[in-house]
Amino acid sequence: MSIRSLPPSELVEAARSGNRRAIGRLLTLVERGGPTADAITDLTHPHIGSAHVVGITGAPGAGKSTLTGQLTRLLPERGLTPAVLAVDPSSPLSGGAILGDRVRMDGIAGEDVFIRSVATRGHAGGLALSVPGAVRVFDAVGFDPVIIETVGVGQVEVDVVGAADTAVVVVNPGWGDAVQANKAGLLEVADVFVINKADRAGANDTRRDLELMLELSHVSGQEDESGYRPPIIMTTATDGDGITEVWAAVQAHREHLDATGKLAARRAARLRYEVQSRVARIVETQIDDAISASVLDPNISPATHAATIAKQVTSS
Amino acid sequence: MSIRSLPPSELVEAARSGNRRAIGRLLTLVERGGPTADAITDLTHPHIGSAHVVGITGAPGAGKSTLTGQLTRLLPERGLTPAVLAVDPSSPLSGGAILGDRVRMDGIAGEDVFIRSVATRGHAGGLALSVPGAVRVFDAVGFDPVIIETVGVGQVEVDVVGAADTAVVVVNPGWGDAVQANKAGLLEVADVFVINKADRAGANDTRRDLELMLELSHVSGQEDESGYRPPIIMTTATDGDGITEVWAAVQAHREHLDATGKLAARRAARLRYEVQSRVARIVETQIDDAISASVLDPNISPATHAATIAKQVTSS
Repeated sequence: MSIRSLPPSELVEAARSGNRRAIGRLLTLVERGGPTADAITDLTHPHIGSAHVVGITGAPGAGKSTLTGQLTRLLPERGLTPAVLAVDPSSPLSGGAILGDRVRMDGIAGEDVFIRSVATRGHAGGLALSVPGAVRVFDAVGFDPVIIETVGVGQVEVDVVGAADTAVVVVNPGWGDAVQANKAGLLEVADVFVINKADRAGANDTRRDLELMLELSHVSGQEDESGYRPPIIMTTATDGDGITEVWAAVQAHREHLDATGKLAARRAARLRYEVQSRVARIVETQIDDAISASVLDPNISPATHAATIAKQVTSS
Repeated sequence: MSIRSLPPSELVEAARSGNRRAIGRLLTLVERGGPTADAITDLTHPHIGSAHVVGITGAPGAGKSTLTGQLTRLLPERGLTPAVLAVDPSSPLSGGAILGDRVRMDGIAGEDVFIRSVATRGHAGGLALSVPGAVRVFDAVGFDPVIIETVGVGQVEVDVVGAADTAVVVVNPGWGDAVQANKAGLLEVADVFVINKADRAGANDTRRDLELMLELSHVSGQEDESGYRPPIIMTTATDGDGITEVWAAVQAHREHLDATGKLAARRAARLRYEVQSRVARIVETQIDDAISASVLDPNISPATHAATIAKQVTSS
């Protein structure tokens, strides 16, 4: 029987028993949105919670994909079954072709690793909905860890990685890279820092920059009250140097989350964010219908207009 | 009397009569959000519509800032008074410092140009609210054009530039750059393409790539029904080569918008998007309150949870 004709419940069953085509199909349906995606969400949700969700982010060209690629080689040796969600549109992991990336990518890394590229545009609800949906599928069918690779430049993209169990931020040596990471909001969300291309000049300066900024955030009271402080790992991902240290740092962070009870808090926050995005998406249609032609009236500002509609849409 | 103690109405008046400190203060207040920002929105909204809003986007390092910098030199010679909103966190225009960018940047370009850097994180409502707010202030006090410089990697960032009157997308020569622009959703929003660093190898190949992709989008019916097709301009922004051609292309696009009546449609769409974002922001608090502790119940999926809350929050 064709995978395509299976109802969601049987599809989830097939995926959970290891059928890779069923997993790919689930990911496609979830990304598409609508009632079928909601049914899959209902069916997979009870099975999540085992996977450690790792976000890897940084500027384009920082070496996120190379690092992720090295992890997908290291982790199966440790008996783990990683899945990768490549959100970065410029990621080599998601290929260089205009069409058919996702088809070409599914499963290329062999039986141990599942790589999926997520379209960054045009799907229902955007990244705030499509990423948690895909992570849920991976988690429910037994992949662990689930690695999300994204470019840490956009607002939503930083939010998505910040919502992972462990957020890894990759920077490169060179004046200003740490500063730019800070400006993009990456310092606030980082649990582990990686200085990749550490064989290049300026790696130690960048390390000092990062340490200084962490120190500053400590002074301003932003440091974790439990005393956790993001470690800084030096890597040369192209040679595999430092990759085991990166994974050790991720595991240490996970142990910290477990020991402090923060894992549940972080996951609850992630679910809240997802529910919020979903409600916003549902309510959006009603908002859309309520925006009248008077949007072009120069005497009704968007602030006034929005206040009126908000009253109209909500029951209070 | 200190600018800081002026009520919004007098602040708007002072800004409209050319007081640069008043303009800076308005931008700060608008970015901060809340009732004062809403009051300023109400006061400035009736005065907008004169400025041509130009979005300039592309990958980090494509040369957007250099191009923008050249335009801020060219345009005053033409009798125009440009303002620049730098959303790109890595933009040299927004400086390299962690703190105090905006203070340092305000007005550095002299009396003819006003440059403002927008924090990409942490402000009320995100870019979808802060950019239209700042553009409104610039427009209402008489700047024209208003140039928004942003990195076209994130979802929100592409949306913001796509909502400008004219969207300029900057790519560089080299295999894959046009492809990456396509994947980031930039091709769909571009009104003018710039191949910057056109003195480098591969510029003509990149031109062909872009032309091919435009051709493909034509075949699939995405081309503008009026026959407008985004021109491709070759520049070497560091030398100023091609800058007058870029501006001529922006003006030609503006004439196209005027001639076809599309300017009003585009601005109505922009206002709709702003009103939508504002309502979503207001409703968000109610959504937040409605999300119960059951968010962690494995038997209530986010899809089900969201549907329940949406019913609860809205009156229907």
